[in-house]
Amino acid sequence: MEDKKERLKKQMDFLLEIDKEKTIRRQTLLADGSRQETDAEHAWHMAVMCGLLSEYANEKIDVARTMLMVLTHDLVEIDAGDTYAYDEKGNASKKERERKAADRIYALLPEDQAKMARELWEEFEEGKTPEAKFANTLDKIQPVLLNDAAGGISWRAHGVSDRQILGRNRNTHLGSETLWEYTRELIEQNIENGTIRKAENSDE
Amino acid sequence: MEDKKERLKKQMDFLLEIDKEKTIRRQTLLADGSRQETDAEHAWHMAVMCGLLSEYANEKIDVARTMLMVLTHDLVEIDAGDTYAYDEKGNASKKERERKAADRIYALLPEDQAKMARELWEEFEEGKTPEAKFANTLDKIQPVLLNDAAGGISWRAHGVSDRQILGRNRNTHLGSETLWEYTRELIEQNIENGTIRKAENSDE
Repeated sequence: MEDKKERLKKQMDFLLEIDKEKTIRRQTLLADGSRQETDAEHAWHMAVMCGLLSEYANEKIDVARTMLMVLTHDLVEIDAGDTYAYDEKGNASKKERERKAADRIYALLPEDQAKMARELWEEFEEGKTPEAKFANTLDKIQPVLLNDAAGGISWRAHGVSDRQILGRNRNTHLGSETLWEYTRELIEQNIENGTIRKAENSDE
Repeated sequence: MEDKKERLKKQMDFLLEIDKEKTIRRQTLLADGSRQETDAEHAWHMAVMCGLLSEYANEKIDVARTMLMVLTHDLVEIDAGDTYAYDEKGNASKKERERKAADRIYALLPEDQAKMARELWEEFEEGKTPEAKFANTLDKIQPVLLNDAAGGISWRAHGVSDRQILGRNRNTHLGSETLWEYTRELIEQNIENGTIRKAENSDE
């Protein structure tokens, strides 16, 4: 009986701890450009996308599993913070910071769920399974949708180049050719109108 | 081919439209009390809860279906706004406002998904199926968790009474006796320490 109570307490403590994900701001603005979105909002948006767009996955996916993956894929940022996609220095130390965060955060859960949630995160990071490939595709196309809707403010503010964004999206097609095709068109429109700048030869 | 393209366009337009859910503020504060949470953050939190607490559902539930239900249950608030639980006047017109919102918002989706998403929302509102009962339980216990963590600022600000909160939670046990038991203890602690006031006989 005590064990059962302890189990629930651990789950509730974890659920309270992850409330902090609502305080982590991404570089992406909301579609109306009014403010940066939070990690929790990004995860919510991806989960709805997962529920409505799974028909476009290249391979058949377990939707419930993929949903939980996208809902929790950014929890490590509670300790490690959000690293902007084009921040090279930040990205160099990202893996280690996120691993330490995972060690602490998932361990709050009862053992079986800690293992499951951690494995789900590692699966997402590795991007090898059909679920992880689709989740990574959603993670890449969601900010493109928002950036495009917001007039590309965030791309312009950071001087993002076509080479950077296409490089960052080199694997986006792995989860869904159809969704990548849609997103690539949006990106190309933004390269054409100058919102995303054309890389010069001197760029890295 | 055109049909397929049109289908995806409708889905993407819907996914962009629902970005507005991130701009709707609830009366509940984050656990750290720093600000009100948004509808999208609330839905994200509920969906993670659904993924981790389904073992406590009174009846066996389809987790993926329940997740999509909680992720989308508040979309009508994009047009109808958030109605505070203890706002009697607001609650009188809520049903009609939300029905009109559902007519517009779900119709953005391709017909089959519009029907599915609308039915999911109606199922949640009716609260009869195991999935809807569990989703409604999560919808009630999530703000209690946060309010308790934030020291009950929001309960005190609105002068919420024990009679109001217990009345509002009269069906919370229907989705999960275990989760209601946990939540009831939190509520009782807050009644005892005066954060939730004791109703007087003159109260409605």
